[in-house]
Amino acid sequence: MLPTTSRAWHLLARPKGWPKPEDVELREVEIPELAPGRLLVRNLFLSVDPAMRGRMNDAKSYVPPFKLNEPMEGGAVGRVLASTADGFAEGDYVLHWLGWREYTVVDAEGVTKVDPNAAALSAYLGVLGMTGLTAWSGLLDVASFKAGEAVFVSGAAGAVGSQVGQIAKLKGASRVIGSAGSAEKVELLVEEYGFDAAFDYKEDTPVADQLAKAAPDGIDVYFDNVGGEHLEAAIGALHTHGRVAMCGAIAQYNATESTPAPRNLALSIGKRLRLQGFIVIDHYDRRDAFFAEVGGWLKDGKLKYRETVVEGIENTFDAFLGMLRGENTGKMVVALPE
Amino acid sequence: MLPTTSRAWHLLARPKGWPKPEDVELREVEIPELAPGRLLVRNLFLSVDPAMRGRMNDAKSYVPPFKLNEPMEGGAVGRVLASTADGFAEGDYVLHWLGWREYTVVDAEGVTKVDPNAAALSAYLGVLGMTGLTAWSGLLDVASFKAGEAVFVSGAAGAVGSQVGQIAKLKGASRVIGSAGSAEKVELLVEEYGFDAAFDYKEDTPVADQLAKAAPDGIDVYFDNVGGEHLEAAIGALHTHGRVAMCGAIAQYNATESTPAPRNLALSIGKRLRLQGFIVIDHYDRRDAFFAEVGGWLKDGKLKYRETVVEGIENTFDAFLGMLRGENTGKMVVALPE
Repeated sequence: MLPTTSRAWHLLARPKGWPKPEDVELREVEIPELAPGRLLVRNLFLSVDPAMRGRMNDAKSYVPPFKLNEPMEGGAVGRVLASTADGFAEGDYVLHWLGWREYTVVDAEGVTKVDPNAAALSAYLGVLGMTGLTAWSGLLDVASFKAGEAVFVSGAAGAVGSQVGQIAKLKGASRVIGSAGSAEKVELLVEEYGFDAAFDYKEDTPVADQLAKAAPDGIDVYFDNVGGEHLEAAIGALHTHGRVAMCGAIAQYNATESTPAPRNLALSIGKRLRLQGFIVIDHYDRRDAFFAEVGGWLKDGKLKYRETVVEGIENTFDAFLGMLRGENTGKMVVALPE
Repeated sequence: MLPTTSRAWHLLARPKGWPKPEDVELREVEIPELAPGRLLVRNLFLSVDPAMRGRMNDAKSYVPPFKLNEPMEGGAVGRVLASTADGFAEGDYVLHWLGWREYTVVDAEGVTKVDPNAAALSAYLGVLGMTGLTAWSGLLDVASFKAGEAVFVSGAAGAVGSQVGQIAKLKGASRVIGSAGSAEKVELLVEEYGFDAAFDYKEDTPVADQLAKAAPDGIDVYFDNVGGEHLEAAIGALHTHGRVAMCGAIAQYNATESTPAPRNLALSIGKRLRLQGFIVIDHYDRRDAFFAEVGGWLKDGKLKYRETVVEGIENTFDAFLGMLRGENTGKMVVALPE
């Protein structure tokens, strides 16, 4: 018996500042008929990502805002329960973009089949998914990292940051420095992920001072997940011809006013710095090379990753808030029962 | 009779904020013997440039700071009075880097011979010199300008800015917008240099509002001579995949504290903006192509330029301050008697 209804998280109101429980609701919806070329999927893992916060605003961006009173969207891995699409059959596992719900009917176009034997299913949302490609293409293509360079990563215990640091080490970085928001995460960076140095940005010492201590010879690349004070510190520490990959500004996503900016941006002129904003959807053409390299490292046990798994569709919004507060270590996913 | 002494501007103290008359002094110095491989040059035109302010500070930069109690340095064109260097003879005109003085002995290495018949001598300090190469390589190489794009230039009535706007038009820009600091300069931009629109940033209306009016369809490239509020406005107006050539931040050179920064820098992520700081010394390899293209436009009367000429070595420091205050229109030079 195929399911006929699904619970799905709806956006009811556009949050001002931090999202509140009354901004969203878990509602039961009808599952539509399976038109040709479509799949009925039971979601097994839902992705919660910082970028989803942006889609709750009614702002023009690279992806349209979530619609009010409709289910929100996000990355998900699930099992095909029924297919009317060529190349997909019942029992296949797929990666798609209709998360925030238990079941979905999805157009097979753009859906990717994944191999549950090559890696854990949840990995396709993280280390082998969008966050992995973000780390890999951001470091190598956007920041033009080269062997022998020193790399600083903020939000370094997160899904993207922890992978950036490890990729830099695997590719021959002279030194990799990370910042994170707790002593436990700092320890994780050094002990588990092999960072050369790490610091807790929530300590009283200014980020610039902590960075100067952790990177006494300066840095060549800054992978920015945070913005604000971190970016200012990095601009101060970057060598001539340094590069910044601007990946995120999580410190600012829930700000209701303009936030402090790097007051030393004019240093970019004399230092010839390049600051490049990017989003992973521009880098899909690099997926094959990414899968080959990162998949190989995973297989060889050279790349470590952690996940924070929250169980149950009803806990998805709390998981999302927790991720925004930095409670996750590594990729945050929601697991739904098989 | 060759001269044996020269007046030369010395730096006595590193200015805090705006340079003051007591920070510098015009002193008479002995001209050294003409060792082999050197030229004795009578300077005819001295360049005064915003970047010279930076060299008055004791800060690590791409060029060393001026030394205290020694003559300052800067671009100059002069006539050779005596030569012990191969390839240079008395009567040759040369471009060199030992300005801020009447006469100088200079190592022939790095000195460029110039043709007084191909262009006015002062042009080699401006439209065909460092400022010209700055405009040309900054727009084409750093900002990757392409035909059909809309370009915004700040400090647009200056030596670099006025050339950026004209090059963009000559290369097929869809729209060129400039900002300047007076109604007269705004008129000059539109009437003489052919900008499509221009505004006076000193008016009460915020720069972002004036830019939105002048560029209702947004911009693709921002050539930044100013920093601060201008850069923030440009980030707001830039299209996806827009580029910023960060050439100068003249608004900030005399600031004693950190200055306001673009509070919307995080927009660079979703818009995939590229902000690239640059200095012209990295682009010397493009000089031949620059001379060919810009020299051709000059010959054909397609490129217009203005100069503000101040007479006399004793007025050099006032000319420099006037340039920092924006009193010049086009390239500011000091002319010394032949």
